[in-house]
Amino acid sequence: MTVLVQSMPWQRTAAFSLSLRSGVQAEPDDRGGLSGLVCEIVQRGAGSQSSRDLVAIQDNLGIDRNSGVSTAMVSFTCAMPADSLEPAIDLYADIVRRPHLPADQLDDARMMSVQELRSMEDEPTHRVMRRLRELHYGDRLGRSIFGTIEGLESITQDDVRNHYVDHYHAGGAILAVAGNVDVVDVVEWAKANFGDWKTGTAAPLPEPTGKATYEHITSPSSQTHIGFAFESIPYGHPDYFKMRAGVGILSDGMSSRLFDRVREQRGLCYTVSASCHSLKHCGGLFGYAGTTPERAQETLDVTLREIEHLVDDLEVAELDRWKVRIQSGLIMEQESSASRASSLASDWYQLGRVMTTEEIESDIESLTLEDVRNYWLNHPPADYRIVTLGPDPLVVN
Amino acid sequence: MTVLVQSMPWQRTAAFSLSLRSGVQAEPDDRGGLSGLVCEIVQRGAGSQSSRDLVAIQDNLGIDRNSGVSTAMVSFTCAMPADSLEPAIDLYADIVRRPHLPADQLDDARMMSVQELRSMEDEPTHRVMRRLRELHYGDRLGRSIFGTIEGLESITQDDVRNHYVDHYHAGGAILAVAGNVDVVDVVEWAKANFGDWKTGTAAPLPEPTGKATYEHITSPSSQTHIGFAFESIPYGHPDYFKMRAGVGILSDGMSSRLFDRVREQRGLCYTVSASCHSLKHCGGLFGYAGTTPERAQETLDVTLREIEHLVDDLEVAELDRWKVRIQSGLIMEQESSASRASSLASDWYQLGRVMTTEEIESDIESLTLEDVRNYWLNHPPADYRIVTLGPDPLVVN
Repeated sequence: MTVLVQSMPWQRTAAFSLSLRSGVQAEPDDRGGLSGLVCEIVQRGAGSQSSRDLVAIQDNLGIDRNSGVSTAMVSFTCAMPADSLEPAIDLYADIVRRPHLPADQLDDARMMSVQELRSMEDEPTHRVMRRLRELHYGDRLGRSIFGTIEGLESITQDDVRNHYVDHYHAGGAILAVAGNVDVVDVVEWAKANFGDWKTGTAAPLPEPTGKATYEHITSPSSQTHIGFAFESIPYGHPDYFKMRAGVGILSDGMSSRLFDRVREQRGLCYTVSASCHSLKHCGGLFGYAGTTPERAQETLDVTLREIEHLVDDLEVAELDRWKVRIQSGLIMEQESSASRASSLASDWYQLGRVMTTEEIESDIESLTLEDVRNYWLNHPPADYRIVTLGPDPLVVN
Repeated sequence: MTVLVQSMPWQRTAAFSLSLRSGVQAEPDDRGGLSGLVCEIVQRGAGSQSSRDLVAIQDNLGIDRNSGVSTAMVSFTCAMPADSLEPAIDLYADIVRRPHLPADQLDDARMMSVQELRSMEDEPTHRVMRRLRELHYGDRLGRSIFGTIEGLESITQDDVRNHYVDHYHAGGAILAVAGNVDVVDVVEWAKANFGDWKTGTAAPLPEPTGKATYEHITSPSSQTHIGFAFESIPYGHPDYFKMRAGVGILSDGMSSRLFDRVREQRGLCYTVSASCHSLKHCGGLFGYAGTTPERAQETLDVTLREIEHLVDDLEVAELDRWKVRIQSGLIMEQESSASRASSLASDWYQLGRVMTTEEIESDIESLTLEDVRNYWLNHPPADYRIVTLGPDPLVVN
């Protein structure tokens, strides 16, 4: 386990993010949803506390908490008044190390997961982006964090126990803490709680297996929802910010190209956006547009054309605007212990080190228009994965 | 116009909320959506800046911005690095005082509003809560901020201009600023920008006209969505926190009664919640539950029973947990200039004064279980407004 601590003495709060290598990519093929279900069940009683005691203690400590799974990780994140940090770390050590995994809660937790999945499927945007992710990364890396109905329904108590035993351990784990804390204290609390935890292997992620494709989901919706993706580089890549600047010029803010040219100037759609997503060793640019069925074809065509022609007329003013946005974001992050704790954990996982705010600021500041142009000229969008949902399919070249 | 400033010198950011009396309740009956459309169009060019210049300047200042309408107000909220505050206030003075209201942008802005409305209608939860609000408050106060298709389609350039002239003025306006700012500077900037703005009348809100009723929307959804509401007191009422504590015991956090008893113990539904909503002179408690059609009737029955029997077994531990949650929230608000600016504006509008964090803390701290019990005994839920969406209607007594 790696412990990362950043003291932010101007805060009154503290926050932590505790991440273990129990993401959805570790699930057996026919048990989609197991990782999320185990994340839920470990919180239903642990150490000397029942399920109800646990939530009562958390509420009494004033903990604003979240938990969830991603491709690689399960994460428990908590923000709280700084005084509550020590007992909160104790409590989460119980949760991840000494959960009761009560067999009589399995059906109930399963039913909640099935309902959550079904309510997600009621949302067309979610359906499109879920399918797009599957197509982009392929089988294991593209799995939805919500699982599948079949997977959830076939999970047994043995599955829960085996998954817990195999994936809840100190190997590859990260405890990131930020806020009004004393670094020495935090390290001591972490040692006391996790120093003797068993380690384990954290296998590297498999390679992505997605390919160029187009898929349409027929639905009587009054809107056509369009998702598209193509391969890109992950956060740990040396060229990351050159790529990211291009995406920012395309889609960060209301003066960005997609918003300005597709929505404002042409009035093609209400929503259009693109953003990058990173796994540790691979990534993707994911885009979404929602519009009327009549305007859907033109929306898709114009959006992809804007992306493909990004370098044709890049202006310094666009890059400068993006730099200001990123720097404002960094300033705001300094005011949130929760954001900072998440960044520490994510940096460590993706880069194997932590970037200081100053280092990111200086990397961003030194980017030139030539950097961005060269990157995008040498890495043009290719092999689109496209998913649409609406009354009729579109024409995809 | 009232100017409210709170200096938070430990911050690097500043934020403001500029609110004018141009909410949806001021719209003509057959122009649903006009208020939101005017809010959009004033931002499409103002002072010496074109629409594109405006967004470029905002992006260059690193402003994280939002705008939107509520029942009574239109609000423009911005968070930014503290250095950007002065030019940002200048810019928003242009937007609200010297907008171009370009006639050639009306159709485009209208189309965006129609699309936004349609995409909201694709979401069953939104449809239920929108209809519930109409039933709870009645015609004018219950209007949706998204308007109606018919209203949006009939809006003319004259409507836009008249609405702007009638409702964008200093009467009832509030500029609330918080963050790393000098109070004297801010007052000076506000005077320079708004000192000579015309005033106008800000008519009081009409009385609510909602009544007890049940309405079902038939839909082939895989979920049944349940919304319910009953009358309650607004934020400005002396008993507000007594009422609010009861709602907190019912629905704040995972150890709250609805979450624990309806979801966790009985496994009836994935989502269940209740919260209070305040207009200036009236309010409501609004609840929502989403579940399978088979469990919907029991979910509704059990949820209402829990609310009606709140006082039967109130425990000090429940009240104490709620107090901790509120106090944690207040601590976190101190770390966000944007949250604090919004609270200043909302306090002034609702109460005619600003509550300090210390004052709220002490009001909360002094609440007793007897206070909560007496309030809820004397104000039991009554005259439910209920809306369901799903394959079949429920039985409502």
